[in-house]
Amino acid sequence: MVHLQSNSYGKQRVRLTKVLRGEAPDGSPLHQVQEYTVQIMLHGDFETIYTQGDNANCGPTDTMKNTVYAIARQTSFSSPEQFGLALTSRFIDHFPQVHAVDVDIAMSRWNRIEVQGQAHPFAFVKEHGRRTAAVTRRRAAGPSDLSVAGGVTGVEVFKSSGSAFGGFFRDEFTTLAETDERILATTVDAVWNYIHTPELAAGDLPFTEAWDTSYQTITEVFATHESPSLQATLFVMGEEMLKRTPTISDISFTMPNQHHMLFDLSPFELDNPDEIYYGTDSPFGIITGTVSRK
Amino acid sequence: MVHLQSNSYGKQRVRLTKVLRGEAPDGSPLHQVQEYTVQIMLHGDFETIYTQGDNANCGPTDTMKNTVYAIARQTSFSSPEQFGLALTSRFIDHFPQVHAVDVDIAMSRWNRIEVQGQAHPFAFVKEHGRRTAAVTRRRAAGPSDLSVAGGVTGVEVFKSSGSAFGGFFRDEFTTLAETDERILATTVDAVWNYIHTPELAAGDLPFTEAWDTSYQTITEVFATHESPSLQATLFVMGEEMLKRTPTISDISFTMPNQHHMLFDLSPFELDNPDEIYYGTDSPFGIITGTVSRK
Amino acid sequence: MVHLQSNSYGKQRVRLTKVLRGEAPDGSPLHQVQEYTVQIMLHGDFETIYTQGDNANCGPTDTMKNTVYAIARQTSFSSPEQFGLALTSRFIDHFPQVHAVDVDIAMSRWNRIEVQGQAHPFAFVKEHGRRTAAVTRRRAAGPSDLSVAGGVTGVEVFKSSGSAFGGFFRDEFTTLAETDERILATTVDAVWNYIHTPELAAGDLPFTEAWDTSYQTITEVFATHESPSLQATLFVMGEEMLKRTPTISDISFTMPNQHHMLFDLSPFELDNPDEIYYGTDSPFGIITGTVSRK
Amino acid sequence: MVHLQSNSYGKQRVRLTKVLRGEAPDGSPLHQVQEYTVQIMLHGDFETIYTQGDNANCGPTDTMKNTVYAIARQTSFSSPEQFGLALTSRFIDHFPQVHAVDVDIAMSRWNRIEVQGQAHPFAFVKEHGRRTAAVTRRRAAGPSDLSVAGGVTGVEVFKSSGSAFGGFFRDEFTTLAETDERILATTVDAVWNYIHTPELAAGDLPFTEAWDTSYQTITEVFATHESPSLQATLFVMGEEMLKRTPTISDISFTMPNQHHMLFDLSPFELDNPDEIYYGTDSPFGIITGTVSRK
Repeated sequence: MVHLQSNSYGKQRVRLTKVLRGEAPDGSPLHQVQEYTVQIMLHGDFETIYTQGDNANCGPTDTMKNTVYAIARQTSFSSPEQFGLALTSRFIDHFPQVHAVDVDIAMSRWNRIEVQGQAHPFAFVKEHGRRTAAVTRRRAAGPSDLSVAGGVTGVEVFKSSGSAFGGFFRDEFTTLAETDERILATTVDAVWNYIHTPELAAGDLPFTEAWDTSYQTITEVFATHESPSLQATLFVMGEEMLKRTPTISDISFTMPNQHHMLFDLSPFELDNPDEIYYGTDSPFGIITGTVSRK
Repeated sequence: MVHLQSNSYGKQRVRLTKVLRGEAPDGSPLHQVQEYTVQIMLHGDFETIYTQGDNANCGPTDTMKNTVYAIARQTSFSSPEQFGLALTSRFIDHFPQVHAVDVDIAMSRWNRIEVQGQAHPFAFVKEHGRRTAAVTRRRAAGPSDLSVAGGVTGVEVFKSSGSAFGGFFRDEFTTLAETDERILATTVDAVWNYIHTPELAAGDLPFTEAWDTSYQTITEVFATHESPSLQATLFVMGEEMLKRTPTISDISFTMPNQHHMLFDLSPFELDNPDEIYYGTDSPFGIITGTVSRK
Repeated sequence: MVHLQSNSYGKQRVRLTKVLRGEAPDGSPLHQVQEYTVQIMLHGDFETIYTQGDNANCGPTDTMKNTVYAIARQTSFSSPEQFGLALTSRFIDHFPQVHAVDVDIAMSRWNRIEVQGQAHPFAFVKEHGRRTAAVTRRRAAGPSDLSVAGGVTGVEVFKSSGSAFGGFFRDEFTTLAETDERILATTVDAVWNYIHTPELAAGDLPFTEAWDTSYQTITEVFATHESPSLQATLFVMGEEMLKRTPTISDISFTMPNQHHMLFDLSPFELDNPDEIYYGTDSPFGIITGTVSRK
Repeated sequence: MVHLQSNSYGKQRVRLTKVLRGEAPDGSPLHQVQEYTVQIMLHGDFETIYTQGDNANCGPTDTMKNTVYAIARQTSFSSPEQFGLALTSRFIDHFPQVHAVDVDIAMSRWNRIEVQGQAHPFAFVKEHGRRTAAVTRRRAAGPSDLSVAGGVTGVEVFKSSGSAFGGFFRDEFTTLAETDERILATTVDAVWNYIHTPELAAGDLPFTEAWDTSYQTITEVFATHESPSLQATLFVMGEEMLKRTPTISDISFTMPNQHHMLFDLSPFELDNPDEIYYGTDSPFGIITGTVSRK
């Protein structure tokens, strides 16, 4: 006998741009731009869609797309976390067959263009990296009904000193030399979960301040931590983020180790005093870890 | 108090090409090529690497890379599943601090080039899609010590008839029209788990035959199933695969719904009798499901 | 003084799918699918658009997109070359300010899915590589009014024998060893121009047969040519294509040399008898050349 | 008769990182990082490589790679333009069979990480966009022996006001509405050529200052130009760059028009006062133009 063990469906890459056409105190235009790429996944009573070809419980993914734009018009939000809260409520409230909904949002980082030292009111240039948010809402009572996470992806960092790697485990296939001075380069991908509170459920946390603190912490710790390994740097990042932001419960990181190796110039009778490196795309190390409050 | 809740590290994109330089019955060369991209993730007693900066338990990811090439030389295998079995054994046997290891392999599909109707002995052209294998081995006794999965990724399929979508759930944001004739297009990503048996643990299953059957089943069901939804097609694919391959226990699919919409030619006083479509990259529907034996 | 030296504008990534809903002799459906991604670039009297902000001569790129779909409906074609001929005529005939138009088309290769040994009438699986066509039409009289090219992109080929590289130029920075047996791997990108004839201008050449011959020639020569360098293989491919297809005047190739290097297993006291290789993404060699009739 | 009409070969994606380990006035470390991805293409007496399989004139692309690293060690440079000048000289001087060499460099933009308001001495975060340089050197006498270009790629900009598009050419396939307020979004790709002078040939121009001025000009003009079309904005960018940097002779731009369309909320009885947009990946407009001194 065969059965449907698990399932989910949804819509990916729904691209929303919302322009808030506000005014400066002098009445001139002062715009905000919110550019979100949204993914929605539904969990629920969908078994007969799969097993019987019965679509009665199947809300079309096209409707999910429409919902993104309609809810964006109907609600006011200043962060992707708040938009995720609104979107997930919509599906729980209007799709009775849905048990749980995941909304993942990637936000482009638009900075104002500087014109003669002044931030322009409606022109923007894209900053590196993306801010993310993930909201899961369940049809349940109590603290398990909601998870809200913030995050960052694609922040590329590099340091030319302050990184070592030695004292490691060896077997017969180990050829790596120990080093007390290497290049450390990675692209940080981090996700942090907020502690469930009434303020969180109401969307009343300062999510954007928390994001700014996280970004600052990640780059600062990367710069200043005297690193014995990328793993150890990861843990210090997590520790420091939990210290600085009491509203988060835990943080998960995924960080590639983007190797830079000294190029061997000896065939050309040239020395290489930690100066000339080549980067490689493959293979690369990958380090993950979750740091949480006990 | 802060602690390391979970962690893992490893190596990604280790690119191995193994050439088996065999001979045909007449003594002329007859080569096989195995091109694998390997990812290894380790789980184990790594906490002090993160929290103390103590690398005594840290097998370098560079060693993992070396291990891929050394084991490829030392062992004989005819499938990525068998290579994954060998690689995971190596880490469990030689890294005492490791509790579990995941090896994921993506295999390029190299077909022999036809020259005047004959398959060439050592020249190949790459076929669409990739075969995958995933082996997890745990330091444990009994059936939980090993999971072996086969899979396929990147198989793009398209049908211009035999697909409908109607009778679906509607709310105020639903604008999609019902249709009894639409284009169905997707890129199949499937993973199937093998039932734990002594033959599996010994690597003695006909993995490549199972893969060929799976590929054939996926494309055949896609072609012939009168589809009321991509979800229903997914389930029939899974049912049929379990029927045809008794050694697998379950199958998971992830399939985007790659929309093709009729272009509105009415402004130009042209009709469009299900002929002229435009494809979109975003947004897209995404359908997932796992079909298993009860 | 400043002026506009040159300019062009157009539309990219117009995605067209045309379904030809034909019938088999027994009256059952037998469909053809044409999936083209189209790029159009216009050259003409556009200077005042740029310098004066005067859009009177600016046909919107949105109109170009509409034109792709409308012309696809209004005309019958069996190849991207023929569609390019029709599209370029449209712009020359209806945009008096246009001097020349370039249309580039990339065609997906959809093969029929095999079901119990039979090609399915309306279900397809995507083949590796893409067929291309490029048509340039000028508002001019005579043979310079039209250029038509066919092409192929993304055909990945690999051979484990029959390739050497030696006797090369050396300077003080040369460390490469000569070899009489190496892996040769590349991704072929080729474009061939048709000789201007009345048949060509009328779209009456067998473009698809020429494409099949080209694909066959490229893969056959790759397989069978005893290669002293990728450059020499390129030239033999070109020679053979000109020999087999009298309607083409010249062929240009761009081929990366996708290096596969023997992995050094000596630290592990293992030999490596031309068996274990690693592939690299960067850097890579790049070989280009145009072979033409004198 | 068949012949080799033209040819070139070289190396792509040579990834160089050079760390300048300098000191601050107080003796503490103060590093600079130069991360370049280099492409080299050679033109010369290579015909017999292709036609005869004779490699006597074939400098291996592996040697080109080595040359990048060796020259990076042997020479001092503060810009990709200067490194391109050094690299091209090397090939002209040491490869007698070479007639001309093109070096293209893409430079990552590494900014110092801010730690408590201070720029860190050796830790960096990657900024959006990349700086480029292109140097062509010919074995020739006089001003035609050298071309040097600077450039920028990947700068994404967006404005929510100050952009219109109307008064355009119409034909029967035009459906686009005129608008006096639309979103304008593009990713700027610009290349500017320097005027040939003895200072240029000596590498003595302030290339980095010119780059900073160009970046500032591009973003400022984008922000402040009341745009009747992307073409017109392109021309003003070019005019302004020629005005601000007298050492450049001309500038070429390639800019996609990354469309953002108002989402139709009327089926939901919602208005959309220029607020809710969706972005599309395909198709997109593409605008090119070269602005030069007369």
